[in-house]
Amino acid sequence: MDMRREQHLYEELADRIVSLIDTGALKIGDRLPSVRKLSQQEGVSAATVVQAYVHLENRGAIEVRPQSGHYVRARNHAVVDEPRIARPSNVATRPSIQDQVMQVYRSGSDRSILPLGAAYLSPDLLPTEKLNRAMALVARTAGGVGVAYDAPPGSLQFRRAVAKRSVGWGAPIKADDIVATVGAMEALHLCLRATTKAGDTVALESPGYYGLLQLVESLGLRAVEIPVHPRTGMDLDALEDALRRHRIKACLCVPNFNNPTGSLMPDEAKQALVELLARREIPLIEDDVYGDLYFGAARPRPAKAFDKSGLVLLCGSFSKTIAPGYRAGWAAPGRYRDQVELLKFAHTLANATLPQLAVAEFLANGGYDHHLRSIRKRLQEEVAQVRDAICTQFPEGTRVSRPQGGFVLWVELPPSVDARELQRRAFQRGISVAPGPIFSAKPRFTSSVRINAGNVWSPAIARGIETVASIAQDLVRGR
Amino acid sequence: MDMRREQHLYEELADRIVSLIDTGALKIGDRLPSVRKLSQQEGVSAATVVQAYVHLENRGAIEVRPQSGHYVRARNHAVVDEPRIARPSNVATRPSIQDQVMQVYRSGSDRSILPLGAAYLSPDLLPTEKLNRAMALVARTAGGVGVAYDAPPGSLQFRRAVAKRSVGWGAPIKADDIVATVGAMEALHLCLRATTKAGDTVALESPGYYGLLQLVESLGLRAVEIPVHPRTGMDLDALEDALRRHRIKACLCVPNFNNPTGSLMPDEAKQALVELLARREIPLIEDDVYGDLYFGAARPRPAKAFDKSGLVLLCGSFSKTIAPGYRAGWAAPGRYRDQVELLKFAHTLANATLPQLAVAEFLANGGYDHHLRSIRKRLQEEVAQVRDAICTQFPEGTRVSRPQGGFVLWVELPPSVDARELQRRAFQRGISVAPGPIFSAKPRFTSSVRINAGNVWSPAIARGIETVASIAQDLVRGR
Repeated sequence: MDMRREQHLYEELADRIVSLIDTGALKIGDRLPSVRKLSQQEGVSAATVVQAYVHLENRGAIEVRPQSGHYVRARNHAVVDEPRIARPSNVATRPSIQDQVMQVYRSGSDRSILPLGAAYLSPDLLPTEKLNRAMALVARTAGGVGVAYDAPPGSLQFRRAVAKRSVGWGAPIKADDIVATVGAMEALHLCLRATTKAGDTVALESPGYYGLLQLVESLGLRAVEIPVHPRTGMDLDALEDALRRHRIKACLCVPNFNNPTGSLMPDEAKQALVELLARREIPLIEDDVYGDLYFGAARPRPAKAFDKSGLVLLCGSFSKTIAPGYRAGWAAPGRYRDQVELLKFAHTLANATLPQLAVAEFLANGGYDHHLRSIRKRLQEEVAQVRDAICTQFPEGTRVSRPQGGFVLWVELPPSVDARELQRRAFQRGISVAPGPIFSAKPRFTSSVRINAGNVWSPAIARGIETVASIAQDLVRGR
Repeated sequence: MDMRREQHLYEELADRIVSLIDTGALKIGDRLPSVRKLSQQEGVSAATVVQAYVHLENRGAIEVRPQSGHYVRARNHAVVDEPRIARPSNVATRPSIQDQVMQVYRSGSDRSILPLGAAYLSPDLLPTEKLNRAMALVARTAGGVGVAYDAPPGSLQFRRAVAKRSVGWGAPIKADDIVATVGAMEALHLCLRATTKAGDTVALESPGYYGLLQLVESLGLRAVEIPVHPRTGMDLDALEDALRRHRIKACLCVPNFNNPTGSLMPDEAKQALVELLARREIPLIEDDVYGDLYFGAARPRPAKAFDKSGLVLLCGSFSKTIAPGYRAGWAAPGRYRDQVELLKFAHTLANATLPQLAVAEFLANGGYDHHLRSIRKRLQEEVAQVRDAICTQFPEGTRVSRPQGGFVLWVELPPSVDARELQRRAFQRGISVAPGPIFSAKPRFTSSVRINAGNVWSPAIARGIETVASIAQDLVRGR
């Protein structure tokens, strides 16, 4: 009810602004009131104003100018704020970024650091209480099962719970097709190991999640980077070209809300991707950890929904929606299921039993869907608010992604800004950001940063973004 | 108090038997009364009689003849019952046993199967209640920490608890030297990856734990098998010879209670092993998961205690003492610490947070030492009882290990027995055993089986061993 009312409010507000534009009361190029001012003026929350502005921006009616504010947009005006599509050179490389990402990871658990770096959700946004209660419950009732090994493929309750949800994604998976893993990270690791060997070449997204690059590096694989369009995901023409030039043994992809861009591949593109690879018998390792965090009308399907030959290895987890620390991940590896299960034995032998049972309990009785609805709404607001702050405070020429789900923003600063230096200075002032270069195996994205919006908006976050903005301004001015 | 009293009882009984031998009342070759009979006769428990017999057997005063009973031993009589030292051919091989061990693993969690196969402790022997209470407690009190990532090197409470215990092993390790892992399995995996690459050759024990062979196989490593003496562990002359013949990049060893033989390397041998490898700058990956389960007077030291150059990577866990399902393992990788920590990121990112905190809580306040004292005593009794049953019921010519810790028995049957066929027939009758061939990368130990004694003795266990014995008898008779 509440949600509907608020949606109603921001849409009403957006409609009022559109009619002001239509009637000429607001002209092209006119500056709109600040969020605070309009919020006071209209008697609605700041979040409602931000949502209305984001809504109008997405409709192309207004635009955000960094350092300045929201403006009525010129017709046919190019979309100014989105990052450019990456054009990585089409040469296979061995990634070497491992040591550079440690600071980003570590600062996620350091409470003295403002966590704008790692893609971590604040525990304030997680169903912490309920989940810990579920854990206490299963711990009290599991008896011997709780301390015993839970041999691969892992707890049936857990696998059934995942299978049940998969129906809603349009990619029904059976419990028997699933292997429980230590987070999606282990799932991706096992799937890569099941499909490749050291020295092989894999295709992956650019920019793409540094964890995958680390993994590829640590397995002695070579990476061909495929550009990601900030709106529609992996560039399939570029992939096709790469498939012609290289003996690619597997393709890694995050079709739903690529990390860092937040792009979403349309269904047709997903289908085309699956078919393109299937024709060549190349497995697709799909990472769908953000799929439940969509801002649109419906849960996007994974590419697995279009898999007819068992060549899609789907990986997921509950780390991005309820509990990173429970390490409850899974793989649905299609025709590689048995290999993945075997590798699991030699990898970590088994998952921790109780966290899996607690997640299964929470999925059955804890209101996961209710939680998802609320967190999606809150994340959409957080992302809009952080995006807004970046747009208004970062140096002119800054481009910012418009994520369609998830909770990270990809920010392309003017070329004079060295992202590593930005990271260094921000860290000195107690703020972590993820520097662009770690999202590629090659020295690229040198002026980009990824900003985590998985926090609850607060004066500290606002000040943090102001600080990063002022450091960026300094760097633009050569200071 | 209770324990002392019982120890007193069996020693007293043993002394009485010795004096009967000394006075000539019992002569060489005389059969001693059965356990049941002597227990009734002396008004002590069967366990006390078993302990007395084991004690006398270890002192060389009596011997067990399979199918028959306990006999006063001939002076200078060769030790008949211990398995022979393995003499693996000294050629590096790529192990290929992965598919064969699945049944053993799986049957460990299948409650309809009598678990004489996998080296699992029965939850009845674990501090299940206390530990699940510790878990419920940390779940209720951890708040946001419980659901959040616990980035490598892992929870400080957990690492401090391990560090504190290490003082008692004579190998003090600092919390900072430790990386938390998903069981010892992940620790061994990460340590192998930190020290080797695909195609390298490693030295390992023969017979040795099949999990390590799987791991070595899955990493594309070659294995040189070093024979294990059933009493004193890895044969250092054979290792030295292998070091001359092969470019060995790492050595894997379980000095404390090798799985499957239960052998214990004397301190001097551990020191010699460490020095032998250090002279060649070869890392030693030490698996010490059974170290706390000693039957002797004191906790044996790990080889790490003799490490002066940081080349010993010590791996441990709480899976063999309190909770396999908590997956609380750790590595103390010496000079490879940073590599292991980096690999952990790309491997599983983090451990499950709450199980680690629950283990730390249990170690601090749950009476771990008390539990260890009680479980050591019980396991020693279980091992003695299972060993006794095997000795009296298995075919003539059977040899059985005399483990000095842990809870598995290594049984060498007459050469006409095919261990795989034994496994197959036993499984058909609802009993799992671990067939010898999975303890080597080569087709060896074809007439051996490993029997798990980590259960509470019961009529079902007794019947299970009887059944396995009768299958073995059939196989000897060519049926």
